[in-house]
Amino acid sequence: MAEQSQEGGLKQVILARRSVRRFDGRPVERELLRSCVDAARLAPSAENVQPWRFLVVDDPTLKARLAEGAFSGIYRVTSWAERAPVLVVLFAELDILANRLGKRVTGIDYYLLDLGIAGEHFCLQAAELGLGTCWIGWFSSDGVRKALGTPRRLRPAALFAVGYSAHERMPEKKRRALEEICWFNEIG
Amino acid sequence: MAEQSQEGGLKQVILARRSVRRFDGRPVERELLRSCVDAARLAPSAENVQPWRFLVVDDPTLKARLAEGAFSGIYRVTSWAERAPVLVVLFAELDILANRLGKRVTGIDYYLLDLGIAGEHFCLQAAELGLGTCWIGWFSSDGVRKALGTPRRLRPAALFAVGYSAHERMPEKKRRALEEICWFNEIG
Repeated sequence: MAEQSQEGGLKQVILARRSVRRFDGRPVERELLRSCVDAARLAPSAENVQPWRFLVVDDPTLKARLAEGAFSGIYRVTSWAERAPVLVVLFAELDILANRLGKRVTGIDYYLLDLGIAGEHFCLQAAELGLGTCWIGWFSSDGVRKALGTPRRLRPAALFAVGYSAHERMPEKKRRALEEICWFNEIG
Repeated sequence: MAEQSQEGGLKQVILARRSVRRFDGRPVERELLRSCVDAARLAPSAENVQPWRFLVVDDPTLKARLAEGAFSGIYRVTSWAERAPVLVVLFAELDILANRLGKRVTGIDYYLLDLGIAGEHFCLQAAELGLGTCWIGWFSSDGVRKALGTPRRLRPAALFAVGYSAHERMPEKKRRALEEICWFNEIG
């Protein structure tokens, strides 16, 4: 692809990361999953709190139970993710000082920025390793909690579907033009 | 560094990204800054809303005014960032359906996850290009708004200090062990 050949290694990985919603039957090696979480582990976070916790679900029985809880009712539109060979739950474990007091002052939920950073490290590492992923935000938090017996200290913030892509080709990424989102010294 | 030589290209970039708070005097080429925002532009987001907007401030007068507004009072601890050759403001431009209604149902501020993702694309691209960055969450949102005459539709969510690092060497990254944050099929 001409678009990719002119860019450095990172841009190629960024372009290779697509939201994959169809997977072939191959299981995913745990070493690769560990490598993805290890990339997330190295992410920066507010006050270095590292609020991210990754639960990798590759046991078929548990995965079915998780999917049933996560994708029921109004969340049924996300049920394609049941067929991913792996579901990963990204939890936040909140720190009182950095996350609760910080937010009270500035109004920003820093832990969500931090989880976005770490979760994307996970997805980019997966892309580099040839794995497909999809960020999932539309799920029942209560359903996830009950399916997994989640302790109160953990808050489910996102899920990932993970596996080898079964898409034969993906459409082009649809994004705003650079000039619409990048301004110099004056708000556009 | 032995730690880096065994890893693929992405892990090297991730390890090279450090929170840089001291910069040498070199100005930063706009082409490089555009390349960093372009990496952010390609990020995924909830419903592909692409809520991120980047204001790059490299004009010295505006930068001084922004820093004065952003880092006053209780935010004085962040005033080291005044000396960065470039400050970037990451704004959210919220979409009513995806960001406000979505949150009302699930309680998750998706736009912050999305800004975390895009902002980290920016920082990783900068690292690959040899630039130092630092995520800044501790700043006066009102101060930023006033310094820049920010329209109501935009919400400042983070700042970045950007420049060429003047750190001669950085300490090792301090992170939790992988086993503390990565669990398989059972919450640890």
